[in-house]
Amino acid sequence: MRIAFIGLGNMGAPMARNLIKAGHTLNLFDLNKTVLAELAELGGQVSTSPKDAAASSELVITMLPAAAHVRSVYLNEDDGVLAGIKPGTPTLDCSTIDPQTARDVSKAAAAKGIDMGDAPVSGGTGGAAAGTLTFMVGASPELFATLKPVLEQMGRNIVHCGAVGTGQIAKICNNLLLGISMIGVSEAMALGNALGIDTQVLAGIINSSTGRCWSSDTYNPWPGVIDTAPAARGYTGGFGAELMLKDLGLATEAARQAHQPVILGAVAQQLYQAMSLRGEGGKDFSAIVEGYRKKDG
Amino acid sequence: MRIAFIGLGNMGAPMARNLIKAGHTLNLFDLNKTVLAELAELGGQVSTSPKDAAASSELVITMLPAAAHVRSVYLNEDDGVLAGIKPGTPTLDCSTIDPQTARDVSKAAAAKGIDMGDAPVSGGTGGAAAGTLTFMVGASPELFATLKPVLEQMGRNIVHCGAVGTGQIAKICNNLLLGISMIGVSEAMALGNALGIDTQVLAGIINSSTGRCWSSDTYNPWPGVIDTAPAARGYTGGFGAELMLKDLGLATEAARQAHQPVILGAVAQQLYQAMSLRGEGGKDFSAIVEGYRKKDG
Amino acid sequence: MRIAFIGLGNMGAPMARNLIKAGHTLNLFDLNKTVLAELAELGGQVSTSPKDAAASSELVITMLPAAAHVRSVYLNEDDGVLAGIKPGTPTLDCSTIDPQTARDVSKAAAAKGIDMGDAPVSGGTGGAAAGTLTFMVGASPELFATLKPVLEQMGRNIVHCGAVGTGQIAKICNNLLLGISMIGVSEAMALGNALGIDTQVLAGIINSSTGRCWSSDTYNPWPGVIDTAPAARGYTGGFGAELMLKDLGLATEAARQAHQPVILGAVAQQLYQAMSLRGEGGKDFSAIVEGYRKKDG
Amino acid sequence: MRIAFIGLGNMGAPMARNLIKAGHTLNLFDLNKTVLAELAELGGQVSTSPKDAAASSELVITMLPAAAHVRSVYLNEDDGVLAGIKPGTPTLDCSTIDPQTARDVSKAAAAKGIDMGDAPVSGGTGGAAAGTLTFMVGASPELFATLKPVLEQMGRNIVHCGAVGTGQIAKICNNLLLGISMIGVSEAMALGNALGIDTQVLAGIINSSTGRCWSSDTYNPWPGVIDTAPAARGYTGGFGAELMLKDLGLATEAARQAHQPVILGAVAQQLYQAMSLRGEGGKDFSAIVEGYRKKDG
Repeated sequence: MRIAFIGLGNMGAPMARNLIKAGHTLNLFDLNKTVLAELAELGGQVSTSPKDAAASSELVITMLPAAAHVRSVYLNEDDGVLAGIKPGTPTLDCSTIDPQTARDVSKAAAAKGIDMGDAPVSGGTGGAAAGTLTFMVGASPELFATLKPVLEQMGRNIVHCGAVGTGQIAKICNNLLLGISMIGVSEAMALGNALGIDTQVLAGIINSSTGRCWSSDTYNPWPGVIDTAPAARGYTGGFGAELMLKDLGLATEAARQAHQPVILGAVAQQLYQAMSLRGEGGKDFSAIVEGYRKKDG
Repeated sequence: MRIAFIGLGNMGAPMARNLIKAGHTLNLFDLNKTVLAELAELGGQVSTSPKDAAASSELVITMLPAAAHVRSVYLNEDDGVLAGIKPGTPTLDCSTIDPQTARDVSKAAAAKGIDMGDAPVSGGTGGAAAGTLTFMVGASPELFATLKPVLEQMGRNIVHCGAVGTGQIAKICNNLLLGISMIGVSEAMALGNALGIDTQVLAGIINSSTGRCWSSDTYNPWPGVIDTAPAARGYTGGFGAELMLKDLGLATEAARQAHQPVILGAVAQQLYQAMSLRGEGGKDFSAIVEGYRKKDG
Repeated sequence: MRIAFIGLGNMGAPMARNLIKAGHTLNLFDLNKTVLAELAELGGQVSTSPKDAAASSELVITMLPAAAHVRSVYLNEDDGVLAGIKPGTPTLDCSTIDPQTARDVSKAAAAKGIDMGDAPVSGGTGGAAAGTLTFMVGASPELFATLKPVLEQMGRNIVHCGAVGTGQIAKICNNLLLGISMIGVSEAMALGNALGIDTQVLAGIINSSTGRCWSSDTYNPWPGVIDTAPAARGYTGGFGAELMLKDLGLATEAARQAHQPVILGAVAQQLYQAMSLRGEGGKDFSAIVEGYRKKDG
Repeated sequence: MRIAFIGLGNMGAPMARNLIKAGHTLNLFDLNKTVLAELAELGGQVSTSPKDAAASSELVITMLPAAAHVRSVYLNEDDGVLAGIKPGTPTLDCSTIDPQTARDVSKAAAAKGIDMGDAPVSGGTGGAAAGTLTFMVGASPELFATLKPVLEQMGRNIVHCGAVGTGQIAKICNNLLLGISMIGVSEAMALGNALGIDTQVLAGIINSSTGRCWSSDTYNPWPGVIDTAPAARGYTGGFGAELMLKDLGLATEAARQAHQPVILGAVAQQLYQAMSLRGEGGKDFSAIVEGYRKKDG
């Protein structure tokens, strides 16, 4: 299959690599010449523009940093995807952006006879390299059926969330809850520690009780509780606080537009922002717990 | 075994019943004559005071509404437990109170040669009746070994949390997290609904992703997601918002005394308080989600 | 002076009326034909586009609902202000928008030889009609000197805040604080009332002590404290909660872009959002206090 | 007049000194022998217990650190004030404690024929020394009339708040609002600074607009805005964050007992708690702004 792959950053490059490995021919586009050269060596074809990449493809996939890039890559009248794509070509944007932009761009695509979906991912750069990403797909049933086998070459968990835009909605709602839960676990663990219970024992009780959650049983922020969590390695790797901030920004902004309150979500966003202001934004988001501990504690 | 059981309310009465059923002889005390008469018919002995109940017992168990009652039942110089108990009698308070009071009363007991532990429970009145409670036990290893077989006659999950007071700490830390998680799930579900994703689909995605938690996968507040949750029956039964408020009050007060911030925990407490002010405090705590929905929404 | 006035809504129309009254000739533009006809009767000239309005003017003033309108009115290549304006014409946008858009549009204007400032107002429709608005002006010193006499025909308090964009910054920072203070006063008054102090006495003490603020001494949300406040007339008139929500949205979004935490500000935004969800967004923002009172209380 | 003065700490000692200066004879009691000796040199009489101090006095005044001390000093059966006082002696507690304790102790006093009021102060140790304190008095009209001339020898502003307990209510409600306002000003100033407006200009605009408050116009937390504020001297002196924490703890606890939500108040409390955890609790409470600034910013 000839696939246009546009956006070859930390996530896009390993995803494209997995598609090449699976035997597809890729039309590649990115502003970064180095990564283009690297993927060309593996057999990819370098395109001169999104338009050029899309023109001869049977499927278009994009993986871009933010909504502004998605608008530009698809809608630019001179060299955007929609300026070159053949009607009927299935199209998927894997960027994490606001649901409204996903819907707007998809609508513009539909006007040109293109069925376009959104499929933000979770699983990080590790999952992208290992081909174990989760794809949250907003697409028509037909488009989903077409995309699924290809997505399975890049991911392990391909979930159909509903019509276009619902992929983004699923991701931001999940991450809104995740951002809150991690702070909830941090407060519970730090309070228990301050009051004098052993933190391993406390985590064990929570994990078999009603406080049980992924942030406690799989990714506990307290050092010494989970050997494989970022807390065990100085909060390196994992899901950076700046990425959590991006997702909470999308969630609170979508909530604002929908006139929907998200009270704890908004506080959580501000607490990660305060963490970022302290210069800790490069750490895994579970390092939020450090704001609840004495420096030497 | 002859056991003093003091405090026969909604929780204490069914617990005492299970001990009678298991073959123990109970010295009963409560201010409520009706429940005393009821349990006497099952074979319990009615005592005239905590002191009287404790005097001839091999084990003392108390289950009281709040810290003031615990202090009074144990420490009253005229007719309190410590005024009558024989040195060496194992003693356990199952009330949910602040850890400091648990430690203070235990210290007063130790001065009279009594090894006293704390063991707040979870599982509600249903679990008390069914004998499936969880006991979070703060006690010396010897006391825990003595108590365990008796507690197993009232509960299913008997957890040793550490020294006296740690039972209370475990419970308030878990419930602090629970109170936060439930609001987090409410915000995520309500936001997803407002943005247009199917709420069953959204819950499914969260439950297999990083937002996964008990409040979502077992007790989801959105009607139609979990058939057995209070949301499916108008938020009746379950764990009342007023009880959640009591536990969050214990948690934030313990945090204040420990000079430990609990930011989301404090907001959560206030949101349940606002729910109570709206006259909804008698509902299950998951009804907090109603504050995030339009009246007709 | 010939002045282009673009945007004749609830605020723009009375402002334009005051300029006509002061003897200026106005080139008017709005999509609403009714208001155009009305102002034409007072002597205004109706223009066919922003470009047309600007072309023959010595000064351009705009008063628009949101950033998207500002971008479009100025930057539209076919009929925008910058497509028709003569280099050197002083230009001022009085809309309340984000500081970044204010700076972006001003930069586009500068590229065409236009010195453009921003001057959001406070004082509401009452102040617009009475000519008593406050203008918070971001502009070069020269532009400010030029604008001041004209602004004094529409307002009483003309403040120079610094370079372009600072007018918006001043407004959103002030209103961020206002939104917080009003909730702070609401919590203090409602708590005092619940604890049993006379609310007039309490307000008097606060107003002569360290809690003193405009939200307490001039606009107290508790009915019966200030005769002229919206609380005295069922929270009608005044500054609507939806407008407060708009300004808090601008403040938290500007904070997000600047990587600056605004913790209480974000909670305040969500509380007004919850008020709006309850269907109370049309009331004056001081009606936030109703969420802190029992329905019959 | 012979006055019993019990509690001679940082506040009580200078207050007692002013009464001695005004010509009263003082019966002094405190656990600290040094301060007793010091005041004895000025003419005070050292008593051996609160009971002893009260026995021969025409007026009893107490100034103690917390509710537990107030209970003990008044209610101790062996040597408490109520064990020795003559019926009819006017009595006033100037400690800052919860309103419920104020009412409870007053009720116990009434049972012995004593009219007892509460009168927490503001103005700090500086105001205590200078005799410029504000007294917020909860007392019967008769008692207030009796006390007023004496209080004017220690303070400048003597406010009658209502019946006993209302002095405490007034103080905690005012300080709840103060704690919130100071954070609101901090967020507004820090946001303005991050967005690029001059902070002096911003403060000027706020102070003549709807954000105006004592925390901005008299005690602005941003260095360089108010020469006389603690911000101008490294946040030394003033009202320590630990004292603000004490008062917010009283406010949120009173709110909890009254089933009254205080959402921003609870967040404010936690933010000062986080400041205390960072080791900054000894600074003036306006140093809360430092959490909103980059270390070098």
